[in-house]
Formats: sequence, C-alpha cells, structure tokens
Amino acid sequence: MDLKVVALAGGVGGAKLADGLAGCLAPENLTIIVNTADDFIHLGMQISPDIDTVLYTLAGLDDPERGWGRVDESWVFMETLEQFCGPTWFRLGDRDLALHHLRTYRRAQGESLSSVTYEIKERLGVKPNILPMTDDPVQTIVATTEGELPFQEYFVARSCEPVVTGFRFEGIKQARPAPGVLDSLHAADVVVFCPSNPWVSLDPILSIGGIRSGVENNPVFMVSPIIAGKTVKGPAAKMYAELGIEPSALAVVRHFETLLDGIVIDRLDAALAQEIESLGIQVREDQTLMKTREDRIRLANALLEFSRSTASKETLQ
Amino acid sequence: MDLKVVALAGGVGGAKLADGLAGCLAPENLTIIVNTADDFIHLGMQISPDIDTVLYTLAGLDDPERGWGRVDESWVFMETLEQFCGPTWFRLGDRDLALHHLRTYRRAQGESLSSVTYEIKERLGVKPNILPMTDDPVQTIVATTEGELPFQEYFVARSCEPVVTGFRFEGIKQARPAPGVLDSLHAADVVVFCPSNPWVSLDPILSIGGIRSGVENNPVFMVSPIIAGKTVKGPAAKMYAELGIEPSALAVVRHFETLLDGIVIDRLDAALAQEIESLGIQVREDQTLMKTREDRIRLANALLEFSRSTASKETLQ
Repeated sequence: MDLKVVALAGGVGGAKLADGLAGCLAPENLTIIVNTADDFIHLGMQISPDIDTVLYTLAGLDDPERGWGRVDESWVFMETLEQFCGPTWFRLGDRDLALHHLRTYRRAQGESLSSVTYEIKERLGVKPNILPMTDDPVQTIVATTEGELPFQEYFVARSCEPVVTGFRFEGIKQARPAPGVLDSLHAADVVVFCPSNPWVSLDPILSIGGIRSGVENNPVFMVSPIIAGKTVKGPAAKMYAELGIEPSALAVVRHFETLLDGIVIDRLDAALAQEIESLGIQVREDQTLMKTREDRIRLANALLEFSRSTASKETLQ
Repeated sequence: MDLKVVALAGGVGGAKLADGLAGCLAPENLTIIVNTADDFIHLGMQISPDIDTVLYTLAGLDDPERGWGRVDESWVFMETLEQFCGPTWFRLGDRDLALHHLRTYRRAQGESLSSVTYEIKERLGVKPNILPMTDDPVQTIVATTEGELPFQEYFVARSCEPVVTGFRFEGIKQARPAPGVLDSLHAADVVVFCPSNPWVSLDPILSIGGIRSGVENNPVFMVSPIIAGKTVKGPAAKMYAELGIEPSALAVVRHFETLLDGIVIDRLDAALAQEIESLGIQVREDQTLMKTREDRIRLANALLEFSRSTASKETLQ
C-alpha cells in the first residue's frame, strides 16, 4: 500500500526530489508544502520563487540549464526594460511573467496564495497537492556583516556574497499554516525533508505555528542537501561555514536532530554514517546528485523504501 | 519667430497631430499636456494609455497597423497568460510591458507620474515636453444605459458597445495640474486642441482646476476629431449621437465654443464653415486625415500658420 507522504520543499534541489516523489506516488498520496519566505513584490508583481520552481519542475517546464524559470523562455520584456535602464537584477522571462501577473491579479481580487497556487497547478496539469506553507506574508531577512538584507537582495542582487551572521523571518509569529497543511501532516505516514536549504527553506516552514508539532508526530526522513561539504546549488554550505559550523550531512542532521528518523547521505559522505547513527538516526548511502528525471525517481523510491523498512523495524521493536 | 505651443492630447489622433507639431516646432517651444483619466491599474501595473500613445508615436515606435501599442511587438507573455486562462481582454505586448513595469516600479518608489514620464521620454529620445494633466488619480466613469462603467471596461472590454448617457471624472476636484502645466500655459502663444475625443480626452484635461482658465488666456485652435459625421478611430461620434447631438465639426465647436478661436475642419465638411463662422470662430478647410508622418507635419504646419495669421489679424484690429 502506498504511503501518504508530506514533503517540505524550497529551491531547486527540493523541487527535484518533489518531482521524484510525484513520479513514484499516486497524486492523492503526495502533498508538497513549499517555503514562501522568499516571496517578494517586484515591479508590482507578487513573486513566489519556491512555489514556481516546484510548479515548473513538476510540470516538466523547468529549465535544466539555467536551474530556474521556464524552459523555452523568451526575453523581449527584459531586453526592453534594459533599454529603459529599468531594474534588471531579477531576471523575468516573458512566459514566467504571465504566472506572476496571474497571481498578482488574483491576489488583488482577494484570492489567497493557496487558492491561486491551486488554480495554476491545475492549469499546468500538475497532480499532487502543492501548498504554500502559509497564506500570510513572511519574509526572510538575512543578517550579514554588512547589515540586514531582504532575502532576494542577498540571494539574487548580491549573489549571496555578504557574510551571513543569522536569519529572521518577519511575520512568522502571526503566520498561520495555509489551509490543508496541518490536515495533510495529520494524515501523513511519513514526512520528507527535500534536499533544500535548512536555514532559509526548511526552517521557515518549521517555524510556522503548528507545523513543527505536526511534523514531530510523523517519522521524518530526508536527503542531505550537502554532499562532500558542498551544495549542488545555493548557499547552504557557505551559510554553515560563515556561521562557524563545518558544512556536512552531519551538520544538517544536527540542525534537525530531534525531528529526524533517517537521512540519505551521498556515497561520498560514507565516512559520516557512523557518527550520524550514534545520534540515533538511521542512514542510507546513495547517489544523491539528481541529474536526470530518472535520478529523481530512483532517489525518491530509495528514500520511501528506506522509510518503509525503518518504520516496520520500529513497529517490530 | 517660433510660437510657443501647448497642445492638449489624448488617444491616437491626438498623438498624431502632436507628432506633427513635434516635426515643425523646436522642442523647447512645444509642450504636450496629456489626458490621464483613462489610466488604470491592470494585473498590478499602472497603465497610462494616452501618455504611452503619445510617447510611442513621438518616438516613432507606434504600430501603424494596430493603432495602439508598439511596433515590432511580440506576444509571448499574452499567449502564456491565455494558456493560464488569465485576463486577456487588455492586450499587452512583451515590449509594452516593460514600460508599464518601469512606471509601476518608479511609482512604488514614490516617484510622481510626471517624473517617470520624463524619465521614459528621455530614454526614448523624445524631445518636446510631455506632461500628464495631473499627478493625482482621476478616473473617467462612463454612464451607460447598463449602468456606470470604468473607462477601460467600456472602451476595451466592452468595445464601446453600451449606450452612453454621460460621463464623470472621479477624483477631478482634488486633482491639481501636474508640475509645469500651468507654467507652460502661462508662457504659451497658442493652445492647440489635438483631434482627440472631446468627452473623454479633452474634457478631463480642461476640468482640472486652473487648466481651463490657463487655456482661456490663450488663442485656442483645434483640428476637428470628426470628419463627415464620423471619427477616424474611437467612439466620439457614437457618443455625440447617443447623447442626442448630431456628430459633426459643428457639434465639436459648440462643445468648446467659449474657448475656441479657430478650427480646421475637413474639406468634406466645407458646408459647415458658414455656420461655424457665424459663431465667431475662424475656419480653415484642409485634408485632416493623417495617414503618413508627412500628413501629420503638413496639418500641424497649416494649423500653426492659421493661428499665426488669425492672431496677427486680431492684433491689427
């Protein structure tokens, strides 16, 4: 029988594993809860980068070269904005714009982020349940040695160059889980942490009131976003180092220690297995780099198999 | 010596004559005051259709086939929005979008409509002074037998089909002339009413506190927007008919009677000349349809020559 899986995701690596899970679970058994603390308003549009990455990836519309935005994109808008000397630091393709405008339009009509996410998901033919972590505004602020920066300014405009000293999530205390989030966690057999940034993708989701305890009631399995001390994409390893923590799958395990039941680490990190297991957390070694859609599905299957076998062992104990 | 000219404009015909004036006056001697009562917010963007038509036309970027928007436009955004079943009633090209976004972005930064209009005009290499009638929000509401409709809903979404019973300009009482508007009228030798819609392009401009009296202090010359009972484009003739007034150059003269010194009517309307002159208003007959840029410049030159000769005749009296 299929497991009921809730996956927490944000960013490209997260979207890839979410796509793998979508490839090996019936849609009704998969809910993906997506980080929205990267959301921002740009040029008058409501932009939800992590939701869009998940939507495009599961719709097969993600650009494999660039790693963000849509495949077969055109850039007439951006070229013209450049001619006007407008703000071009956040690259927006002509097709990508349509999604941002539809979201902005629906929000102005009074619709919630979950409601418009559902509409777009349906239009794109994406089957699993995709939920924003919250319909309320939350904004990641990155504390750096140069002062505080809103996330997109740190991430895109400054290319993650400033040295990080901490994070805070503006609005997180007032934010309530989006409709369906707590229900899906309640109905879940297992929670998956996708290989997303622990600091700025997974932490915001887990900081929304009610989500952490909903997660705690489930077995939690994850794929390490750090391979051999590095991230495939994104600043997680750089953040760990700047915060004085050696970036590794072990650091990630310690980050989520009390929540985790098991972690898939890369074969390159086999030397860490013993120390992770000594913390009471199960380990599988695998190839965790997802280059093709087959890689995504194979890794998702391995993770689910891992969680099944561990769960049944626990049941037997 | 060059006359100092202030032109009032809105819509395609208005932009064409404004372009003609730009072709025969030194830039420092031409100020174009543009209707902004058609402005609206769509998909999160601040859209100023009349300002954009003037900007694109004077920059030589207007599309001669469509009669609106930019030449060499692409429609990837619109196609994608259509796939999402988003609102596509207001057509937005990929290049056109860049201008709307820049305006929206600058306004969100606290800049005024005049300030961003100036920036865009400079980027497009347009030399004459182009001023919005006001920096304050004004919105044309069209009263119809089906109830009140915001202008763009009447004009674009409903293709001017509902029967008009009147107009009102929301916000007009609070609206102040944009910086430079009253100064330009004060310094003017002649005011030109471009062949724009009297009801929804020229009336809003003249309804802003201070503009009408600034206009009254000048000789006022216009080109009739109605030729042989019809408009080249736009609903002016239809509006006159629905309001119980036979659409004609004479109806336009009566509309602005106390302000006008002279009008250029089309040769097709020669029969109206005597009745117009009996109202104390000078008349010239000419070919007023502007098909080419040469037509625009020739008509603008004829209008300026007309105003010069009439003004000197008055001086002689």
